[in-house]
Amino acid sequence: MTANTCNDHGIAGKIERELMPDQSGRFKRQIDFILEADKLKSILRRTVLTDRSRHENSAEHSWHIALLALVLSEYAVGDAIDLFRVVKMLLVHDLVEVDAGDTYCYDDDGRQDQSLKELKAADRIFNILPKDQAQSFLELWEEFEARQTPESRLANALDRVQPFLHNYYTQGQTWQENEIKSSQVVARMHPVEDGSPFLWKYVAALIEDAILKGYLSK
Amino acid sequence: MTANTCNDHGIAGKIERELMPDQSGRFKRQIDFILEADKLKSILRRTVLTDRSRHENSAEHSWHIALLALVLSEYAVGDAIDLFRVVKMLLVHDLVEVDAGDTYCYDDDGRQDQSLKELKAADRIFNILPKDQAQSFLELWEEFEARQTPESRLANALDRVQPFLHNYYTQGQTWQENEIKSSQVVARMHPVEDGSPFLWKYVAALIEDAILKGYLSK
Repeated sequence: MTANTCNDHGIAGKIERELMPDQSGRFKRQIDFILEADKLKSILRRTVLTDRSRHENSAEHSWHIALLALVLSEYAVGDAIDLFRVVKMLLVHDLVEVDAGDTYCYDDDGRQDQSLKELKAADRIFNILPKDQAQSFLELWEEFEARQTPESRLANALDRVQPFLHNYYTQGQTWQENEIKSSQVVARMHPVEDGSPFLWKYVAALIEDAILKGYLSK
Repeated sequence: MTANTCNDHGIAGKIERELMPDQSGRFKRQIDFILEADKLKSILRRTVLTDRSRHENSAEHSWHIALLALVLSEYAVGDAIDLFRVVKMLLVHDLVEVDAGDTYCYDDDGRQDQSLKELKAADRIFNILPKDQAQSFLELWEEFEARQTPESRLANALDRVQPFLHNYYTQGQTWQENEIKSSQVVARMHPVEDGSPFLWKYVAALIEDAILKGYLSK
């Protein structure tokens, strides 16, 4: 018997019918979504932890980048940024990986059909929620993906800076395992500039340093 | 040579001196804090994932409870809650575990000296940040611990509801491994009511159900 049987999930619906009879499944949907989200902890990324002990998963990555937002928001483009929206985007945007998996950022073939997979995943996973919340989470995910607003540009910058820091501070472990060249890293990281020119200058300097130290091949 | 040598960390300071000469170590402190925070991913909790594959770590737990806040805030006491502050508390409050470790919520002996350990940890870890940010994070942590504001009461409720759901939906795995009785679970979970009377009623009903199903002994 698996943990998440219909019978077990059903209790949220039963309790809702007793406590909030007019909610037509709202609370049960919220609990179902929370349990579904737990699966993100089993999606492994290429990035390793800075102590190199293991690969990082997408749930702890999501926490780390939300923390980066709290710490580094002063370097964002513009000064009227809605930081809570940045944090919300960072907390929800990787949930599509529960279905679509994590595609390595330098896997160009994999990334081509990743968009379609993620679109289907977003539709299924966010729609576990009640309609208003599903719509709100879908909009956050779409905003993140479109990279058009200052908030999503900062969110995207942080989503790239965090694994980059892990790479740099593990002396390029993932770059070397995957034979990544500096030109690929520059191409991947350059959009950081749209969210934060300062963070891009920092990243560009670390790339130069990584080449000098032999973490990354030219 | 370990990953986080002074030499490696120093590059944030060097780049800061070149790009932001008036910042006196601000950016370097922020990067040091971000790298230190990575250690939370190695702090294991008693809770298991809902697929029972492994124990949960405190970083992914922090992400999950921040997500619970986005989904369940409508059940909070009061309607003028600052949800961003709830999320910030949930993202930062477990960082003290990098030094203090995770104490099992039913380990009464361990919890007695945990407070002092966590106070020391908060002082060290948050003070890696520049002074203004250290102060702000310390205040969030203190607010969470004091459970006096509606925001911290909701945050505390969610911090208890999430592992409780994991316990219930794994048929009481951690309760059984640690021979926990329902009276202990009731005592641990009752403060949920201060943050959300509805969530407490839900939890109370699940506790009854867990006893009926044999997940939890009376």
